[in-house]
Amino acid sequence: MGTTCGSKIDPLYRYVRALVICFILLPCIQLSLGAKTRHFKWEVEYKYWSPDCIENIVMAINGQFPGPTIRAKVGDTISVELTNKLSTEGVVIHWHGIRQIGTPWADGTASISQCAINPGETYNYRFKVDKPGTYFYHGHLGMQRSAGLYGSLIVDLAEGEKEPFYYDGELNLLLSDWWHKNTHDQEIGLFTNPFRWVGESQSLLINGRGQYNCSLAAKFSSNTSISQCKLRGTEQCAPKILHVLPNKTYRLRLASATSLASLSLAIGNHKMLVVEADGNYVQPFEVDDLDIYSGESYSVLLTTNQDPSNNYWLSIGVRGRLPQTPQGLTILNYHPNSASKLPISAPPVTPVWNDYNHSKAFTNKILALMGTPKPPINHDRRIILLNTQNKIDGYTKWALNNVSLVLPPTPYLGSIKYGLKNAFDQKNPPENFDSINYDVTKPPVNPNSTYGNGVYMLGFNTTVDVILQNANALSANVSEIHPWHLHGHDFWVLGYGDGKFSADKDEKKLNLKNPPLRNSAIIFPYGWTALRFVADNPGVWAFHCHIEPHLHMGMGVIFAEGVDRLSTIPNEGLTCGLTGKMFSGQKN
Amino acid sequence: MGTTCGSKIDPLYRYVRALVICFILLPCIQLSLGAKTRHFKWEVEYKYWSPDCIENIVMAINGQFPGPTIRAKVGDTISVELTNKLSTEGVVIHWHGIRQIGTPWADGTASISQCAINPGETYNYRFKVDKPGTYFYHGHLGMQRSAGLYGSLIVDLAEGEKEPFYYDGELNLLLSDWWHKNTHDQEIGLFTNPFRWVGESQSLLINGRGQYNCSLAAKFSSNTSISQCKLRGTEQCAPKILHVLPNKTYRLRLASATSLASLSLAIGNHKMLVVEADGNYVQPFEVDDLDIYSGESYSVLLTTNQDPSNNYWLSIGVRGRLPQTPQGLTILNYHPNSASKLPISAPPVTPVWNDYNHSKAFTNKILALMGTPKPPINHDRRIILLNTQNKIDGYTKWALNNVSLVLPPTPYLGSIKYGLKNAFDQKNPPENFDSINYDVTKPPVNPNSTYGNGVYMLGFNTTVDVILQNANALSANVSEIHPWHLHGHDFWVLGYGDGKFSADKDEKKLNLKNPPLRNSAIIFPYGWTALRFVADNPGVWAFHCHIEPHLHMGMGVIFAEGVDRLSTIPNEGLTCGLTGKMFSGQKN
Repeated sequence: MGTTCGSKIDPLYRYVRALVICFILLPCIQLSLGAKTRHFKWEVEYKYWSPDCIENIVMAINGQFPGPTIRAKVGDTISVELTNKLSTEGVVIHWHGIRQIGTPWADGTASISQCAINPGETYNYRFKVDKPGTYFYHGHLGMQRSAGLYGSLIVDLAEGEKEPFYYDGELNLLLSDWWHKNTHDQEIGLFTNPFRWVGESQSLLINGRGQYNCSLAAKFSSNTSISQCKLRGTEQCAPKILHVLPNKTYRLRLASATSLASLSLAIGNHKMLVVEADGNYVQPFEVDDLDIYSGESYSVLLTTNQDPSNNYWLSIGVRGRLPQTPQGLTILNYHPNSASKLPISAPPVTPVWNDYNHSKAFTNKILALMGTPKPPINHDRRIILLNTQNKIDGYTKWALNNVSLVLPPTPYLGSIKYGLKNAFDQKNPPENFDSINYDVTKPPVNPNSTYGNGVYMLGFNTTVDVILQNANALSANVSEIHPWHLHGHDFWVLGYGDGKFSADKDEKKLNLKNPPLRNSAIIFPYGWTALRFVADNPGVWAFHCHIEPHLHMGMGVIFAEGVDRLSTIPNEGLTCGLTGKMFSGQKN
Repeated sequence: MGTTCGSKIDPLYRYVRALVICFILLPCIQLSLGAKTRHFKWEVEYKYWSPDCIENIVMAINGQFPGPTIRAKVGDTISVELTNKLSTEGVVIHWHGIRQIGTPWADGTASISQCAINPGETYNYRFKVDKPGTYFYHGHLGMQRSAGLYGSLIVDLAEGEKEPFYYDGELNLLLSDWWHKNTHDQEIGLFTNPFRWVGESQSLLINGRGQYNCSLAAKFSSNTSISQCKLRGTEQCAPKILHVLPNKTYRLRLASATSLASLSLAIGNHKMLVVEADGNYVQPFEVDDLDIYSGESYSVLLTTNQDPSNNYWLSIGVRGRLPQTPQGLTILNYHPNSASKLPISAPPVTPVWNDYNHSKAFTNKILALMGTPKPPINHDRRIILLNTQNKIDGYTKWALNNVSLVLPPTPYLGSIKYGLKNAFDQKNPPENFDSINYDVTKPPVNPNSTYGNGVYMLGFNTTVDVILQNANALSANVSEIHPWHLHGHDFWVLGYGDGKFSADKDEKKLNLKNPPLRNSAIIFPYGWTALRFVADNPGVWAFHCHIEPHLHMGMGVIFAEGVDRLSTIPNEGLTCGLTGKMFSGQKN
C-alpha cells in the first residue's frame, strides 16, 4: 500500500501519528531534518525480462525494470551517478518535468545538454528538485525510452508544507507501451525507404507489467480465444495490485512514459478527482476516465467508497489511434478481500478512440488552481510551428515549418557557450509558415521538407508564445495527436482550438486568467494549441513531440536562452563532437 | 573476372600487354606513378539486407554489405573518413593485418587504440600499407563484426615488384558466418546468468552471400526437405559466380571474418596451391581442401585444368565444432558455360569436423618462403597463457591465466601515454600459470576467475615468446579451437604441440629455421602453440581469440611497447573516459 508518511490528514491525528511513525522509522527522522542530497548509483544494462509475460530484453537500471523510483522532498538535491554498462551504445537520462534551473547540463538530452555517456563511463546527474509533484525519468537517446529506460520521480512537499488537498495514502502508477520487436529494429524501420512502421504496441504496461498471452479479465471477454491469466503474483508480468482500505482517500500518481500511445485510464465504479497535472496543482474536477498522453503526469484522488466486498478494475486503453492493443489492467483490491478475487463485472470500456470531443472536454477542464503564477499579459515573440508529415529524399519525416530536426554530434549547450559556429546551422529556423495559403485540412501540396538543426535563440527573460498548428499528414483525412513537451520550463496552456489559428479571431479567446502551468500539451487533430513561457532559464532546451518515433523522425525544435549567463559548464558532458575536439586540441 | 592488371606473367608478353592496357586504362597510368593517398568517405549505418535470402539487418558501409573493397599498392596511404550514422552506438574499424607502424591510433580497436566514434562524428583513419597481401577490415566493438561490419583490403605489390608466383587472374572471397538472431540479443545472452548461447550460425556467406531457405546443390542432397534455389542472380543472396577461363591460373584471395566458424574450403575436382598466409609468402604446397580460421587470410593458386565443359563447386563448411550449418556454396564457372549450369556431381564433402589430424597436417605444412625474415634465436621474455573457460559470479567467461579481460572506458593508448594510473590495473597480468599442478585435460578444479584489465608492458625491441596453452573447458572432454590474432605485428609461429607445453621437451622442437610469419594462429584442442615476435612497434596492441563472443567473454590480453616513443597522439580519438576528462579539465 502507498506510504502515508507526510501525507495530509487531520492535524491532531497527524501529530500523534507523526510521533508514532517518525520515532519508529529512522528515514522519517532524517527527512524531517530538511533538504538533503540523495545519492544514487545506477548502472544501465540490457536484461532479459518478461514485461508482458513474453520474454524480451529491457534496458534495466540496477537490474530493475522499470528503474528505481526516486522519492525526494522539495529543496533536495538528487545525485545520480549513472554508469553505462552497455556494450556499444551511449546513454543519457532525462528528468522529465524537472526544470533544471541553474543546471542545464543535467537535463539528460543527448546532443543538446550533453554528450551521450559512453560505454563504461559514469556521468553524475546532480540537480535540485524545487517543485513538488509527480514526475518521471527516461532515456533520451535513440529509442531507449521505448526499450524500457524509465522510472518514477516523485517530489514531496518540504517538511511543514501542506498539499491543497487531503489523502490517506498514495499509489504510484507509471504507464507505458511495449513492443515485442527489438527497438533497434523498430528504429531502423523509421529510417528506411520505404518507411517501415512497427504498428501498435503489443501490450500496455502499468508499472512495467502487462499480460500479452492471457487476460486478467478473459472471463468477461467475448473473445473466447484469449485465456484467463493464471499468475501467482511473483511473475515479472503479474499486475501490481493496488491494495486499499475502504473509505479512504488515495492519491494516485499517474505518469505516462509511452513511446506512442495516448491512454485513457478508468477505475470501475469509481470517480477520480484530478488535482495535479505535470507537477502543478489544478482546480479539482471529477472524471470517470482520464486522458493521459505521453509525457504527461497527473495526480487524482480516489475515494474507496464502493462496496468493500468487491474488488475493482483499473484499466488503461488506447486513445487517438485505432487501438490494436488490449487494455492494460490491474486490480483495486479492497482490504480484506483476496487480491485474486476478480471484480464482478467487466473492466471499464475505454472511450472510442476517435471521440475527440470527449478528450477536448477533459483537456479544457484543466485549469490552474488559484495561487498558480499567472502568465505575463503580453508576449515578446510568437513562434508558430506548423506540424507536418513530410518526405525528404523519399524518407518519411515530421517537420516544423518544413524543417525536420536532425540533432548534431556536438551538444548545443557546449557549441553555443563556446561559439562553435560550425556545430549547427546558425540561421534562425522559420518563425512561421505560409498560413494564408497552407491548407491544414489537406495533405501537403509539396511534401518535400529539409533537414535542419538550427536553434530558436530566445531573448533572456522574454515572454515567448508558441502556437502549435496541427495539419493533415501525408495521407488524406489523417491528422494525428501530438503531445508536445518542453524541457527546462513549465508553460501556460493558453488555449486549444480547431482549424487554423487566427490571430484576429483566436487571440482574444486565449485564457490569461487561469491557464494551467504544464510541461506537456497536446495538439488535437486539425487543431492548434497556444502556449506561453518566459525564457528565464539559461540553457538549451528541447521542445518536441513526446511520441518517441516522431521525435526521431524530426518532430522537435531547439530553444536556447541566456547561455552566456552560465559562468561554467562542466566539460565532462562535452567530450564529443566539436567540443571534444576543442578540448583535445588544447593538448597538442 | 578478376583483374589482370599488374599480375605476374611472361615478361615480354607483360610488356606488350602493359602497353596495351595501361594506355587504355587510366587507372593503370595513375597507379604507375607510384605511392599515393587513397581517400575514402564511408558512412556506417544499419540497413535491411538479405545475406542468406532471409531479410535481416546488417551494418552496411555506404549502403553496401559487405563494405567496399579497398585495393591499394604497397607504399600507399589509406585515408578513410569514417562517419558514424548509427543512432546510439559507437563504432570503430580495425584494419586486420595492417601493422600500423607509426600510426597505432589508427588500429581501430575501441578502448585500446581509440575511443569509439560517437554517433554523428567522423574519424579519419590514415595509415600506410607497407606489405603486399590479402587483408580485411572489420568492426572491433561489441558484436559489430558479427553484425556484418567487414570488407576486403587488398594490397598489391608496388609498381615494378614481382610476386614469387605467377597467375593470370584473381578472385577475391571474403568468408563469414551469419545468424538470424540480432547481434544485440546474441551479446546480451553472453552476459546473462545462466549463459545463453546463440548456437551455430544459420548460414555461411561467401562475399556476404549465402542461401538459407534453399540450396544451390539441393538436387545432390539426400535431404529432400530442402529445395533447389531459384535465383536470378540479382538477389542480395545470389552467389557471386567465379567466372574463369579454362587453362589459366587464378589467385584466390581468401579471408575469414567469421564470428565463430572455423572453415574448410574446397573446390570440386581442383587442387589448390597455398602461396600466402596473412600477408606473408609461404612455401607453396598443394591441398585438396584448406582450413581457414577466423582472422586468417590465404592466397591459393587455382589452375583451371579440368573438363571445361563443366562447372565446379566451391564450398565452405564448418570445422572444429559439430556443424549445424549447411555448406556455403558458389560456382566456379568455366567460360563459356552458362553460370547456371550446375556441376555434374555433389559439392566437395567437408572433412569430418573433429578430424584434427587433418587440420594439424595442413597447419604444419605452412612454412615461410625462403627470404622471409627469420626470428631472433633467443627470446627475452616468455609469456605463457593458459586458455580456460571460467566462471565469475556465476557468469561464464574465458580467461588467460585466470584473468578475464574487461576493457576499460579509457583507451590504453592515451592512458599509458599520459600516465593515467587510474585508467587500468597497473599490475602486470600473470606471466604464467601453475603449470606443474594444472591438469589441462580436465575441467578447471577451481573455475572461479577474476576480471582484469592490466597490460603486459613489453620492453621496446625485446623478443617476446608467447606460449598459448589450451585446456579443457568447463564441461568434461571439451577443448575448443581458438584462433588467436595479434595486432600491430606479425609473429613467427614456432610450433604446435599436443598436451602441456614443456620447456624441457618442446623447446628444442621449435622451428627457428623457416617458421611462417603470420598475424593469426590457432591452438588445437588440448594443445599449445608457440609464437615469437619483436616488440618493435610503439603502441598498444590487442592479442585475442578472434572468435567474437570469446573475445567479449574476456579472451584477450593487451600488450604495450614504446608508447613513450610516440611524440604525439592525435587526441581526436581520446575524447572519452579519463583522457576525455583530462582534456576537458584544461578548459575550466
